[in-house]
Amino acid sequence: MRTFQTFIKESIPILDWLPNYKRTNLSGDLYAGLIVGIMLIPQGMAYAMLAGLDPIHGLYAATIPLVLYAFFGSSRQLAVGPVAMDSMLTAASIIILKPENPQMYLVYAITLAFLVGVIQFGLGILRFGFVVNFLSHPVINGFTSAAAVLIGLSQVPHLFGIEFAQSILIQEIIYNIGQQIINIHWITLFIGLIGISILFIGKKLTPTLPISLIVVALSIIIVQLFNLADNGVQVIGSIPSGLPTLSIPLFELNTWITMIPFALTIAFVGFAESYTIAKTVNRQHKDYKLNANQELIGLGMANFGASFFQGFPVTGGFSRTAVNNQSGAKTGLASLVSAALIIITLLYFTELFYHLPKTILAAVILVAVSSLIDTKTPLSLWKKDRMDFVMLISTFFITLTLGIQYGIILGMSLSLIAVIYSASRPHMATLGRVPGTNYFKNISRFPNLENRPDLLVLRIDGPIYFANLNYIKERIDKLMEEKGDALKTVVLNFESITSIDSSGAKELEEWIKALQYKQINTCITGAKGPVRDTLHKWGIVSCVGQNHVFNDDATAVDYFDHKIDANQLSEMQKYSLQQSKDD
Amino acid sequence: MRTFQTFIKESIPILDWLPNYKRTNLSGDLYAGLIVGIMLIPQGMAYAMLAGLDPIHGLYAATIPLVLYAFFGSSRQLAVGPVAMDSMLTAASIIILKPENPQMYLVYAITLAFLVGVIQFGLGILRFGFVVNFLSHPVINGFTSAAAVLIGLSQVPHLFGIEFAQSILIQEIIYNIGQQIINIHWITLFIGLIGISILFIGKKLTPTLPISLIVVALSIIIVQLFNLADNGVQVIGSIPSGLPTLSIPLFELNTWITMIPFALTIAFVGFAESYTIAKTVNRQHKDYKLNANQELIGLGMANFGASFFQGFPVTGGFSRTAVNNQSGAKTGLASLVSAALIIITLLYFTELFYHLPKTILAAVILVAVSSLIDTKTPLSLWKKDRMDFVMLISTFFITLTLGIQYGIILGMSLSLIAVIYSASRPHMATLGRVPGTNYFKNISRFPNLENRPDLLVLRIDGPIYFANLNYIKERIDKLMEEKGDALKTVVLNFESITSIDSSGAKELEEWIKALQYKQINTCITGAKGPVRDTLHKWGIVSCVGQNHVFNDDATAVDYFDHKIDANQLSEMQKYSLQQSKDD
Repeated sequence: MRTFQTFIKESIPILDWLPNYKRTNLSGDLYAGLIVGIMLIPQGMAYAMLAGLDPIHGLYAATIPLVLYAFFGSSRQLAVGPVAMDSMLTAASIIILKPENPQMYLVYAITLAFLVGVIQFGLGILRFGFVVNFLSHPVINGFTSAAAVLIGLSQVPHLFGIEFAQSILIQEIIYNIGQQIINIHWITLFIGLIGISILFIGKKLTPTLPISLIVVALSIIIVQLFNLADNGVQVIGSIPSGLPTLSIPLFELNTWITMIPFALTIAFVGFAESYTIAKTVNRQHKDYKLNANQELIGLGMANFGASFFQGFPVTGGFSRTAVNNQSGAKTGLASLVSAALIIITLLYFTELFYHLPKTILAAVILVAVSSLIDTKTPLSLWKKDRMDFVMLISTFFITLTLGIQYGIILGMSLSLIAVIYSASRPHMATLGRVPGTNYFKNISRFPNLENRPDLLVLRIDGPIYFANLNYIKERIDKLMEEKGDALKTVVLNFESITSIDSSGAKELEEWIKALQYKQINTCITGAKGPVRDTLHKWGIVSCVGQNHVFNDDATAVDYFDHKIDANQLSEMQKYSLQQSKDD
Repeated sequence: MRTFQTFIKESIPILDWLPNYKRTNLSGDLYAGLIVGIMLIPQGMAYAMLAGLDPIHGLYAATIPLVLYAFFGSSRQLAVGPVAMDSMLTAASIIILKPENPQMYLVYAITLAFLVGVIQFGLGILRFGFVVNFLSHPVINGFTSAAAVLIGLSQVPHLFGIEFAQSILIQEIIYNIGQQIINIHWITLFIGLIGISILFIGKKLTPTLPISLIVVALSIIIVQLFNLADNGVQVIGSIPSGLPTLSIPLFELNTWITMIPFALTIAFVGFAESYTIAKTVNRQHKDYKLNANQELIGLGMANFGASFFQGFPVTGGFSRTAVNNQSGAKTGLASLVSAALIIITLLYFTELFYHLPKTILAAVILVAVSSLIDTKTPLSLWKKDRMDFVMLISTFFITLTLGIQYGIILGMSLSLIAVIYSASRPHMATLGRVPGTNYFKNISRFPNLENRPDLLVLRIDGPIYFANLNYIKERIDKLMEEKGDALKTVVLNFESITSIDSSGAKELEEWIKALQYKQINTCITGAKGPVRDTLHKWGIVSCVGQNHVFNDDATAVDYFDHKIDANQLSEMQKYSLQQSKDD
């Protein structure tokens, strides 16, 4: 039994690791925290821009949320903060609401963070973390690639120095780019492309070096030196210094209703991605356990933090978490160090960024999301699992063309429909004896098996339930027709039937009665425990006959061949009729 | 190969049976057709009233639709025409559209019949009959009982001689009855109750006697004799004589959108019920085959007929089909006879029904639907299948309180979610050897099995796919934790795994690698063909090792116990690695 103390330690993980903090971890935590903090400065500003907000809010979102996650999250290496996907979804959500001014835009952003927090925190408290299991890899993969394409395209205006109305549908974005492409500002594009090149090379050379901060610094110096801002290169401009003041989300039903699909997508995808990287990293650390529900609570708290301190939706970032781990982070202290670095920047260094060109922030985003576009997985699925390939591609195109808020929901629905569909057409095999043995195998897979005209041994691989009854019945009828009048014995091999529902039980009884009516020996073999219980409960054991329920096909066939009689059936037969007592 | 001739005969079944008509069938067809026709007169008028239409339209719906079904339907005993459920759904649908006058009401009714026809005919042509498989018995049962309750309550005004606004929600209907209950017209109620009593008794005594026509005739005589119409008993009044003229459905998008949920429900439920009775009857007739898609086409044509000749949605009726079959119907000729009888009535006898009291038609409906309320099935499900019980009860209450148009759709969704949910938590069993044998069975079901601390034999009953990966992993971890450091060998029994998707394959590989990393012998046993193919395709066979894939648990355990070595593995082992060539 869990004591109250364990309960508290599990609910607020910092109470577990901070009191037992080991000196030996300090240098790793400090170094990792600083590196991640340095990465966060340009990334935070870039993602704020992607979300359609002033860059300062990206820094705000990298303060309190990190502290709250360090208290409540169960991972000790996860680096929480603004990420590309959530920022893109934030922009997509707010475009629809058409805010009248930047103040309103910000209010919508913090409201969205609040809703994401409510969903994640609520799911965590209610122990509903399992619903995230219903997001399959192909759906996440298709969605992520599509979102990366949309994010990349959304940066084209900043990179090219052009301007157009925002959109979330690829067909509209491409049309808008086409309209404005002649207005390219070449200096801006040149700076951006140089930035992209350096970032790509730097990333390949040293993954833990804060190359983006170097590119940012260089670009500020160059823009200031050559006075490029006066030549039409868009820069960040003045950033207010100081810590974020308290902000209050909007409590307005219509706004909430519009935001719900986005909030759900951010909550689910944000958690799924964050949990995936946290799990990967956790494999290298045996000193703590990751807990899905606690992760939801930690991320929910971080989003509340973003909501009440002028941020926007946050989650665990892929690249920063990897860097954090590689740089030696051992506890949540690393995150506290990162937050502290951002707070110092906010207090003393904001004016340094005045001349930062927006095209460089676009370059930071483009390099970050380029790795999210995955072409290997669809190719591999095309070869190995055609159905999952279809799921991936459908999700990809739905996300691109119908809107990012429908990608996950429709993708998930599609993959669940596919599950249902395949369960409605279970694999079935006609078995034959491997000569000289007691093994029965699929006659269409192995040559030289016994295939007697008077015997049909049929294996059904899956549940018997309402949606597949007609399919199974038609298969049985067809097989029996092929055998014709010679057929004397039907063995229903139940070893890979996983469950039988009430419709299935009733139908099964009719099938058996129809066979018996035709004077065909009918028996059931190899039923597993839960299926045996169902057969007893619905009276199917009595219908087929107690002495017609066998452990295996060989015994059944020998019995009907009169090679053994009821008295000779081995001691083993009792296992074929066993029923659970508690039912 | 099918010839063009077979194709035509399958598409228009009458071309198959009429040219080969046997004289011996004639008397049965004539008698059955007449009996069903006589039943149709009061039932048609009653169901038209239930649908909110003038009684004459019930007779119209019993003419052309029957002829069209006789041409295109594949059942030879099914008696098509107006039925209670479809009529109730028709009324429910049109209430929402608030027609301004009776002409508009009729236009809506024929439009609904047209939409039902389009859906059924379309599904049949596209060979989509299988979607009806997704309607489970508990959902149909819950829906039917609820609809019967709603139909019964909708007859209260006619039975009691009161009047109030129609509604489709039980809470509103009961409220409305409560408001008007003091205005009961006692003579009306008395006539109705007498009618109900005679109908019940007559039905029990002689199922094929047209007792309802007798009750109708008696009531007409009594009402006329005592001049009860002047004393406030509501009567049918004058019915125009002659055949229906051509009617054209409304082509208006908004109307269609409102009607779609109802049209889908009528199309699905109408087909499901009709097909069920057709299947039951077909078991007694070996001279023809029932075809689900052809049935959809036949019913679709019948509904087109209803739409273009002033009818309303029709389908195969339960009681009339039973009577038709019991009275000796052998071909669709019986239906043609019934239709002819109705046509004669329309031409010459409509004025006979002037004094027919509405309360008697209400009595006919009440007696017809009373048998649809099923209390046995829920009780039996409560004992035997709790999940299906929940589905039935949920569908029942959704239908009563949220509206009949949502009952089927929500019930169907619920039951599909339940399928997904149960597949996300597959049954798993730890196996132990039955001492002295090569059988491995579930140790929690059988006492005295071997349960070694160094060995974990685990069977997973179900697919391995995205939605159950975490569940399975947690169970494996827990079982391994219980075994502790003593654990040396893990046998993954795959004999009841039905499929593995791409997410499952990747995860499985990780589980195996984690076990191997801990230096635990890991092997797979009993994988079925399609699962073997997947294991090969995703490289899991190479990961676990070719010599660690066994046919059965006993061989695997003996191998790791060094009782047999690789050279001694029997010839059978080749079966455990076989892969299908066409993949």
